[in-house]
Amino acid sequence: MILTVTPNAALDVTYGVDSLRPRTSHRVGAVHRRAGGKGVNVARVLAGRGRAVTVTGLVGGPTGALIREDLRGVPGLRDALVPVAGESRQTVTVVSGDDGDATVFNEQGPHVSSAEWRAFTDCFAELVREASVVALCGSLPPGLPTDVYAQLIGLASEMGVPTVLDTSGAPLLDALGARPDVVKPNVAELAAATGCEDAGAGAERLRALGARSVVVSSGPEGLLAVTPDGRRRAVPPERLAGNPTGAGDACVAGLAAGLADGADWGDVLREAVALSAAAVACPVAGDVDAAVHERFRTTVTVEDLHAPQPH
Amino acid sequence: MILTVTPNAALDVTYGVDSLRPRTSHRVGAVHRRAGGKGVNVARVLAGRGRAVTVTGLVGGPTGALIREDLRGVPGLRDALVPVAGESRQTVTVVSGDDGDATVFNEQGPHVSSAEWRAFTDCFAELVREASVVALCGSLPPGLPTDVYAQLIGLASEMGVPTVLDTSGAPLLDALGARPDVVKPNVAELAAATGCEDAGAGAERLRALGARSVVVSSGPEGLLAVTPDGRRRAVPPERLAGNPTGAGDACVAGLAAGLADGADWGDVLREAVALSAAAVACPVAGDVDAAVHERFRTTVTVEDLHAPQPH
Repeated sequence: MILTVTPNAALDVTYGVDSLRPRTSHRVGAVHRRAGGKGVNVARVLAGRGRAVTVTGLVGGPTGALIREDLRGVPGLRDALVPVAGESRQTVTVVSGDDGDATVFNEQGPHVSSAEWRAFTDCFAELVREASVVALCGSLPPGLPTDVYAQLIGLASEMGVPTVLDTSGAPLLDALGARPDVVKPNVAELAAATGCEDAGAGAERLRALGARSVVVSSGPEGLLAVTPDGRRRAVPPERLAGNPTGAGDACVAGLAAGLADGADWGDVLREAVALSAAAVACPVAGDVDAAVHERFRTTVTVEDLHAPQPH
Repeated sequence: MILTVTPNAALDVTYGVDSLRPRTSHRVGAVHRRAGGKGVNVARVLAGRGRAVTVTGLVGGPTGALIREDLRGVPGLRDALVPVAGESRQTVTVVSGDDGDATVFNEQGPHVSSAEWRAFTDCFAELVREASVVALCGSLPPGLPTDVYAQLIGLASEMGVPTVLDTSGAPLLDALGARPDVVKPNVAELAAATGCEDAGAGAERLRALGARSVVVSSGPEGLLAVTPDGRRRAVPPERLAGNPTGAGDACVAGLAAGLADGADWGDVLREAVALSAAAVACPVAGDVDAAVHERFRTTVTVEDLHAPQPH
């Protein structure tokens, strides 16, 4: 079982409008509501590929109830979310019919107390025993210290369970000392965290701080992986137009599945790029286009940038 | 007891952002959630003035539960909302910190079946027996024919209970044949419904179609009332800067209270203008500023535009 953690689970609401015009009133056409947050989207991709997956994290209030209700409809996905007193956040994405562009409003999420966090870590410690991999995903709700991912990585390491971390800013930097197996920033997050404009240099900086491997995503240009056995670049065969929102989550799903299978880095990266592209081809984060996935998984190129260091 | 009807009750969500920038992601600061819809706001104003008031209308789903939960916190307000299977609508208002401007997204509301509407009219027929006035407010949810306000006005008339109607478009026009006592369009709604740019001519047109009296609101310019005993204009003593969102609902609250008391038109209009101004002075629809209300209720001027028609 792959375990995904979403400390700040969300209800993702999408509004279709004719055209977004600031300072006016809009009649909303189609409304879609769906459980979200990065770890939830990762779990959806994995469940859709037939993987046994468990979702944990924190949810609360009526919005939390809607999140859980939506997850009940996902075959193969087990809900092990932990309740908190606060109200889960909602995100609102307004999609303009005239140009297809999206404008996003992200609530910050419930205030989580230290007692609630302790209750969560107790649940997590039980869940991680059954996990082959743990994916730790997204922002933290208010009230939590920025080192909570380090605690979870430590608990997973004690059980010998590898970890994939996808977050940014202080929660990323403060997790590195616990030695996550794979960290997946995008180029902007990497530059913000390290001050390095060069992705290779930034990745080395994260490794120096504790990350074992770093996989940097750069949209349609693919992935750069900096690992203990060398650097590789994985590049998709073509550029796809579409919705980039869920591409990072699909990439994490690919990395987690590869880690669970003990696959070699070439295969792991190929699958991660193929899933990312398949997510871009779908309008909603957490979905992947099966045809694009099949086409890309054999056509992604993986290049060794330099040989492994001699021992 | 004053009865307000909100067929399309809403959860009004307000998001504070630094600056609204289309096609970007926004971190939402303050989030406020509150029961809304015109009839709910009218009831809030009345309850705040110490009036016994009952809210009815249609609510459903988890959003409906949040609406009812919020109403439980309003002293003096009785919740007699009727459940439907669909999910109540949410409105999202994004307030930009840089200029204070509001951008609004209105969901359409739940689909209401004819069986659900029949169940509602049975409840309404019971509630109206105890009412001194009925205020019928706002848009209709999908699925309902545009003549449903006419049905409710007919039921109220049978019991001898006067009605105030605040809606627009087809639901307004299709209600007039049932002879509502007071109709309150704003100038834009009046022009859209009648094609008359002149408010007096538009009001006479609505009276010709069945409205007994028409009160036209024109923002800071006050009210024009066209009634069986003549025309009057009520003008506030000064212009207030602020939030015009709830002014129309506060005006309806003033009209309903005046009708309940059998007050003369001069006093009714003075109170309606004073409450509207007191609403403009508050940031949230349904609230009124007590100090502004006190100051304006004695300083609004009401002018007879021409004498009553001789009998």
